[in-house]
Amino acid sequence: MSHTLDALNTASAADFTAVLGAVFEDAPWVAEGAAAARPFATVAALHEAMLAVVRAAPSERVTSFLRGHPELGGAAAAAGTIGAASMAEQSALGLQRPEDDAAALSALNLAYSDRFGFPFILCVRRHTRASILAECKRRLDNDPTAEWDAALREIGFITRLRLADQVAGPGMPVVHGTLTTHVLDTAAGRPAEGVPMELLEVGSGRAVLLASSVTNADGRTPSPLLSGAPLRIGVYELRFLVGAYFAGQAAGRPPFLDAIPIRFGISEPEAHYHIPLLVSPGAYSTYRGS
Amino acid sequence: MSHTLDALNTASAADFTAVLGAVFEDAPWVAEGAAAARPFATVAALHEAMLAVVRAAPSERVTSFLRGHPELGGAAAAAGTIGAASMAEQSALGLQRPEDDAAALSALNLAYSDRFGFPFILCVRRHTRASILAECKRRLDNDPTAEWDAALREIGFITRLRLADQVAGPGMPVVHGTLTTHVLDTAAGRPAEGVPMELLEVGSGRAVLLASSVTNADGRTPSPLLSGAPLRIGVYELRFLVGAYFAGQAAGRPPFLDAIPIRFGISEPEAHYHIPLLVSPGAYSTYRGS
Amino acid sequence: MSHTLDALNTASAADFTAVLGAVFEDAPWVAEGAAAARPFATVAALHEAMLAVVRAAPSERVTSFLRGHPELGGAAAAAGTIGAASMAEQSALGLQRPEDDAAALSALNLAYSDRFGFPFILCVRRHTRASILAECKRRLDNDPTAEWDAALREIGFITRLRLADQVAGPGMPVVHGTLTTHVLDTAAGRPAEGVPMELLEVGSGRAVLLASSVTNADGRTPSPLLSGAPLRIGVYELRFLVGAYFAGQAAGRPPFLDAIPIRFGISEPEAHYHIPLLVSPGAYSTYRGS
Amino acid sequence: MSHTLDALNTASAADFTAVLGAVFEDAPWVAEGAAAARPFATVAALHEAMLAVVRAAPSERVTSFLRGHPELGGAAAAAGTIGAASMAEQSALGLQRPEDDAAALSALNLAYSDRFGFPFILCVRRHTRASILAECKRRLDNDPTAEWDAALREIGFITRLRLADQVAGPGMPVVHGTLTTHVLDTAAGRPAEGVPMELLEVGSGRAVLLASSVTNADGRTPSPLLSGAPLRIGVYELRFLVGAYFAGQAAGRPPFLDAIPIRFGISEPEAHYHIPLLVSPGAYSTYRGS
Repeated sequence: MSHTLDALNTASAADFTAVLGAVFEDAPWVAEGAAAARPFATVAALHEAMLAVVRAAPSERVTSFLRGHPELGGAAAAAGTIGAASMAEQSALGLQRPEDDAAALSALNLAYSDRFGFPFILCVRRHTRASILAECKRRLDNDPTAEWDAALREIGFITRLRLADQVAGPGMPVVHGTLTTHVLDTAAGRPAEGVPMELLEVGSGRAVLLASSVTNADGRTPSPLLSGAPLRIGVYELRFLVGAYFAGQAAGRPPFLDAIPIRFGISEPEAHYHIPLLVSPGAYSTYRGS
Repeated sequence: MSHTLDALNTASAADFTAVLGAVFEDAPWVAEGAAAARPFATVAALHEAMLAVVRAAPSERVTSFLRGHPELGGAAAAAGTIGAASMAEQSALGLQRPEDDAAALSALNLAYSDRFGFPFILCVRRHTRASILAECKRRLDNDPTAEWDAALREIGFITRLRLADQVAGPGMPVVHGTLTTHVLDTAAGRPAEGVPMELLEVGSGRAVLLASSVTNADGRTPSPLLSGAPLRIGVYELRFLVGAYFAGQAAGRPPFLDAIPIRFGISEPEAHYHIPLLVSPGAYSTYRGS
Repeated sequence: MSHTLDALNTASAADFTAVLGAVFEDAPWVAEGAAAARPFATVAALHEAMLAVVRAAPSERVTSFLRGHPELGGAAAAAGTIGAASMAEQSALGLQRPEDDAAALSALNLAYSDRFGFPFILCVRRHTRASILAECKRRLDNDPTAEWDAALREIGFITRLRLADQVAGPGMPVVHGTLTTHVLDTAAGRPAEGVPMELLEVGSGRAVLLASSVTNADGRTPSPLLSGAPLRIGVYELRFLVGAYFAGQAAGRPPFLDAIPIRFGISEPEAHYHIPLLVSPGAYSTYRGS
Repeated sequence: MSHTLDALNTASAADFTAVLGAVFEDAPWVAEGAAAARPFATVAALHEAMLAVVRAAPSERVTSFLRGHPELGGAAAAAGTIGAASMAEQSALGLQRPEDDAAALSALNLAYSDRFGFPFILCVRRHTRASILAECKRRLDNDPTAEWDAALREIGFITRLRLADQVAGPGMPVVHGTLTTHVLDTAAGRPAEGVPMELLEVGSGRAVLLASSVTNADGRTPSPLLSGAPLRIGVYELRFLVGAYFAGQAAGRPPFLDAIPIRFGISEPEAHYHIPLLVSPGAYSTYRGS
């Protein structure tokens, strides 16, 4: 976060544009337009002002702006010719690496731009590979007006995250989610300490290990399982290894409960998901907590 | 079930032995001995009398009897030279087919007979492939006296099942288990109808589909998921597909709950396992019921 | 149950009317009319035919019939001048005994007959004192047409029960409900045996003990807590005394859980209410099961 | 809290004793003894030093000290002749007011001092009326040595609380407990907002309302239901009024769930009790959380 809102409020218009010109993909005119609306009391107000510039622009200009976005996982990305921010965002998801679903995504991208006249735009930092495919399929059924709005909404998500990365100041938008858990031993009526667990993303067919931890004396993990970024929309599985914890209490070989999988979907990237496990040797329950 | 207890009680000793001589592997002397103790009021009493003959025999004879058992999944089985009953029991489990764990089982068998002087004996109809390996490993640590008892206990399980297959009459031993489920919609306070589910055996690394069903108006499956045989000791997973059932109620894409896996161990082959799912769009619980 | 459907189907019209003439309060013309529609294949069809006679009658006759019903808990009941069936039905509920709410009921009855021109009619065998008051209050807000229908619907409930008491035959309507429970020890993963419990009706301010029992080896009561009659609409409390059951397991004096009250409403008199308790020393849950 | 540990560490022995002389009932010699062990790094160390003075004293002096304690709820309390701190502690519990159990408590006190030679001593700030009676009964069965230890342990609780009230400084002992709740709507998968609740103490036969609140947007109460003091050992009931919250969702009149009572015991006055309610229209569960 290399800039403060204060500094940007008092910079020259040229400097302001130099700093924020790349926030909207290949469209420094957005920052230029917003410069005139300074000062901004909050980072959220700055973002809102930039979005207002886009909304007020002639539709040809917006169309051109939309067309300037790189194809998701496409040839430009592979060739390394897209903007640095887009490149970094797509890299984190492995969208440049050849994968089983790369062909499917290419075909969907093609169908999408045929239908709407601009590439499929999505805030990939809020998504898993599985949800990108699902969203592209779903949005192909939109009518053009709804899809124009959907594309601008995604641009709002993308640029909000970029601003939050680059500008420090009051009124930061909430752009990060968290995933936490809590294991209660309902037989003993106290937190379950020492339960190992794993978190996996399972939506893409193949499970990918994201985190592993062990519960502390309060039955929680020392830090959230996911935090510091938007949660990626997708399907996850928490696996709690309670077998050793209950060894001695649980009759039978194998025990009734050993590895407990909890599978759940995340649809709100900026939310707090709290997924507790209430467990005894003969029962368990889970729920979306807060 | 081709014989009645009444008929066996009044048959000649020779006929009795002809019918039951193969119940104890390659040991018609067990049936011969039990013939003298007739009549039996119950099938369970007949079984108990046959076991008593074994227990009363000189230890060399019992050792010889134990040695007469085929190796589990071994060369004799592959060559088809073992008894018909053993062959059928091992076939159902796929123990003749080459598998990833065949080499591991062979090595364990070898270590076992080296240590105890007779082959590893197990009532395979009460086991999964995974639990056979686990049991063999575990029993290798037994001292010879404990293992002698363990082998005879397994022979008790094997022969009880064979008797139950062949003899009809009062006082049949309980040799079968059942697995049932029940899905309750706790948001509506009524059974959840139309929820598809699958049952898999998952202990061997690779999940094997055992049954699939859909809940009826009472939230149950039309028939038990497993019944009519001992439950095989092992680890299982029930997968309930609640996504479509709750569609419309559950906010978000993907929904918080869609496919719910319930993983549990079965350690009592002759018991009734009732594994209900209490579920609403934001929570679920399960337990070993009755 | 002193008559069979067969006998009633073949009796003279006069005998048929003599037997069933009192089913509809002081209105033998209903039985007379139904006699002509014989034979009936089921008891439910007989009931339906009697209701059809009422519906087809001139409205003055129906009004007169409605007016012939005794006041609930009123002076006629106190004086013993109402029909025997009504008397028995109201006695079971203690409606003749002076109670705190007797004045409230009298006032509601008066307001009701002022508004609709006939007494408040309710199938008291399906109600508690508390729900009678609540229903009378609620129905006072009906418009006359809706209330006419409501009164006839209640007469349907009353007479269905009377027929079920008096006539045996195929196609008996379902007129009885059941209340059952099941206590599972989720720490042990098995039924909880020996847990004492009480069932109370608590809707009227003062709790009235209806039943008490102790769980058996399957965690259930030897017989349903309520059965053989319609469940009375109202509010109930089950109290499970788990303290002694968990003694030794639960830390602390007093234990975290000792007497567990489960309070629930019954609104469907002919339904099966199954109210399980899943309990461990540190947690419990309950739900409407089936 | 009128004194700091720093000031007490550097005060004259006479001033130190003047400030803390009343912490141990009518026994300024305890403070005098501890003065010599100064300075103390923590308040807990100060308390420990005072207890060490008691333990090191000749047994006649300790007996005399024990005998100097007022009778719980006794004549001295009624006459106002006991120490101010004891008076305040007993007043909060209503032990001076005549109550149904006053006679029972007097009789137990008498039996106790007959048996042990000193009055029954208990840290009343950690107890309810019901648990005082239960403790006195239970401790009457102690042998004299165990009871001597029990009395000193209670004096430890009493004086720890008095010190915490009077002295500010590092290393304060944990003397307060908290009771919190959290209501989750498991049908919606989010906190239940606007659910009214009451907390009652129910151990003494007659329920006493202690607090009432309504859940906020996070499903919690704006502040803990109990805090800022030791939790009193006893039996409590939380009553959650979910009827209005679920109105519309729940079928039936009365609804299946309306007022939900959760009855639980508190045995650890300095602990955090978290008693959540997970609820949907057809089910609920609770547990001791953390």
